[in-house]
Amino acid sequence: MTARGQFITFEGTEGVGKSTQLTNAASTLDQMGVDYIVTREPGGTPMAEAIRELLLAPRDEPVNEITELLLMFAARAQHLHTRILPALERGQWVLCDRFTDATFAYQGGGRGVPEERIALLETLVQGDIRPDHVIVLDAPVDTGMARARKRGELDRFEQEDLDFFQRIRDAYLARATAQPARYHVIDAARPLSEVSDQVSGLLNRWVNGQ
Amino acid sequence: MTARGQFITFEGTEGVGKSTQLTNAASTLDQMGVDYIVTREPGGTPMAEAIRELLLAPRDEPVNEITELLLMFAARAQHLHTRILPALERGQWVLCDRFTDATFAYQGGGRGVPEERIALLETLVQGDIRPDHVIVLDAPVDTGMARARKRGELDRFEQEDLDFFQRIRDAYLARATAQPARYHVIDAARPLSEVSDQVSGLLNRWVNGQ
Repeated sequence: MTARGQFITFEGTEGVGKSTQLTNAASTLDQMGVDYIVTREPGGTPMAEAIRELLLAPRDEPVNEITELLLMFAARAQHLHTRILPALERGQWVLCDRFTDATFAYQGGGRGVPEERIALLETLVQGDIRPDHVIVLDAPVDTGMARARKRGELDRFEQEDLDFFQRIRDAYLARATAQPARYHVIDAARPLSEVSDQVSGLLNRWVNGQ
Repeated sequence: MTARGQFITFEGTEGVGKSTQLTNAASTLDQMGVDYIVTREPGGTPMAEAIRELLLAPRDEPVNEITELLLMFAARAQHLHTRILPALERGQWVLCDRFTDATFAYQGGGRGVPEERIALLETLVQGDIRPDHVIVLDAPVDTGMARARKRGELDRFEQEDLDFFQRIRDAYLARATAQPARYHVIDAARPLSEVSDQVSGLLNRWVNGQ
């Protein structure tokens, strides 16, 4: 029987370098001969990507905060059950750009949705499934936003103000502090080579069962 | 202060004549000088209509039943808070083609999602808001499906088999039996003029506060 893969998520506010570190993590797993998939939330399947488009498109109609929350979990249910779990069961590792911690940080910390409501949907959609490891790339929000703005057109979230992203950063750090065994906070304001070395080092440890 | 409008929903399986009876109900309210809006679920706002399209489009990817359920309630949260409640508070009546009873019937009865899960989302999205009256148009499912098929291309739900629609019909009738004060079951297999008279008669009673 193949051993179950590990489920590793990458979290952080805008512009902290998640995409770069996902690529770095993938090449670390390649070097160690570990089979994996790279995916993202919201999205990861055609149906979930269609929900992502609905969520990110700037629109005139103000989006109700519970609508936003339910769309996030609708995409997650589809992604988790049709892509992530089957991959883990086949023995593949899953590297995922954002997961439920992002919902606690963005909809909870950012929008002010009570944590209990998010936790209730987490249980409905995931049962007791949680990522094996969460890598939180942490940087001051003004640094990250300056990088995000350089990428061009801003989506509905990126258009929010710095206070919104400060609340998100605080929410991520609070979650990491509360569950230190599963969360790994990396200072993403350090030079890229240092950040990459830290991420690769963590993956090495996990592949070697440490 | 303007009196709050009444919230009236029209329910039933495919092809029972909901659209015809919504038009009939609207003209009854016109004749009585009652201000109202006519709307539908899933949908009723541009954002909620976009979610409707996601839900109804036939697709190769099997849609997870929890994804479907969360999308229904995401559309509902948007519709309820940005359109239905503001109308009721302005004193307008709301005539709505389907609401949460349809979720209990389709996702609960049809798909087999446990009722408690639907009730949990109902509370999250609606608090204690429920329709003032639910008109259930009831007919044997083969009669209705024959009518629905004549309308042309079938959506993702209409493509299901007769057993699926029988379970939906049973679920509607069970809900109506459990709460007789708020549910009004009308035999939609009777001649159209009789069905219309019954619907108009109910609206007359409600406008007159009976």
